[in-house]
Amino acid sequence: MTTADRLKMSLGEAMFTQRAMRRLKPDPIPEEIIRDIMESAIRAPNGGNTQQWHFIVVKDADIRKQLGELYHEAWWAKRKDQGIMGPEDIPPGKNSQRSAMRLANEFGHAPVMVLICALAKGGANGIIPAAQNLLLAARAHNIGGTIATLHAVVDERVKRLLHIPDTAEIVYCMPLGYPRGEWGSVTRKPLEEVCGIDTWDNPYK
Amino acid sequence: MTTADRLKMSLGEAMFTQRAMRRLKPDPIPEEIIRDIMESAIRAPNGGNTQQWHFIVVKDADIRKQLGELYHEAWWAKRKDQGIMGPEDIPPGKNSQRSAMRLANEFGHAPVMVLICALAKGGANGIIPAAQNLLLAARAHNIGGTIATLHAVVDERVKRLLHIPDTAEIVYCMPLGYPRGEWGSVTRKPLEEVCGIDTWDNPYK
Repeated sequence: MTTADRLKMSLGEAMFTQRAMRRLKPDPIPEEIIRDIMESAIRAPNGGNTQQWHFIVVKDADIRKQLGELYHEAWWAKRKDQGIMGPEDIPPGKNSQRSAMRLANEFGHAPVMVLICALAKGGANGIIPAAQNLLLAARAHNIGGTIATLHAVVDERVKRLLHIPDTAEIVYCMPLGYPRGEWGSVTRKPLEEVCGIDTWDNPYK
Repeated sequence: MTTADRLKMSLGEAMFTQRAMRRLKPDPIPEEIIRDIMESAIRAPNGGNTQQWHFIVVKDADIRKQLGELYHEAWWAKRKDQGIMGPEDIPPGKNSQRSAMRLANEFGHAPVMVLICALAKGGANGIIPAAQNLLLAARAHNIGGTIATLHAVVDERVKRLLHIPDTAEIVYCMPLGYPRGEWGSVTRKPLEEVCGIDTWDNPYK
């Protein structure tokens, strides 16, 4: 039985029940599920099929702990860039910020992290579709995760920790694990607000 | 019946039989299929669910013709950046280059083109997963397409043609249509060549 056979969930269910899962159980993910997820990632379209990508699946407990601390530092560096100096600056209504802050605290507990790297700096645009294949395959196996990024302040240390060449660009750093929340629909602006017909300003209808 | 219900193909089949379709029939795509494709695109994860994207579905024959000419110019501008001045500089064995060159000639005949734009320059990384949802939903409806990009040399004219604000970034410009080729598996390097465990240089096995 191949990976394609095991991903039986309908495309519609996978795409329309996918949501960012930031609260993850520490339970390990079976080896064959990780492989299905990664085999799906590398099937994604990419610029000229030149596959200018490299992935790292982090499972080692000590490396995860260190990467968790670096992610925490990167998350707060991004907040400081926006003038948010600590939890007291995040308004109570800002649930998505609070949920992201919790992920920054818990990142190191995710049983698996996947880094998506571009072989050369500036190469992100040609390889990002792989992240969506990865998350959809994870969804079909009941594995949650979310798109997450690092920050220049930790770039050199992450590269040293994971032996990433200086010439490469770390595009996403994604936690994966069994979800503590429920799958379900996501809130999006309606199509007519974010899509035009023939021109930008002619709303889709 | 919702979009999610209509996308019945299994996730595995959609991801593992998807390939870039550069030869497209000029036959129109039914309205409800275009809507399913776009509704799927906007379900994609995106940075902080801030939806910093705008899509344009181009169907008007005259605009498609003009966009086709601009795509042709952009494609050759990219080749010239690489020192390829004309068809005679593309070696006969380079099938993917020849197929891309044919797309540059035929781009304007695609019945639909979709532009994916970031609301602000530099915002591409946060929105590209939408392109993969779009192509997978298209696949499930037997609609082909491919990721394609423009070039700085035509940027201003494309923005004027499609009323795209100067502040936005055109990320992808994708042709869609019924395929003239067959769906099937794609050639990819094996996982152990493009993926490490725990560190970049420890091959996945």
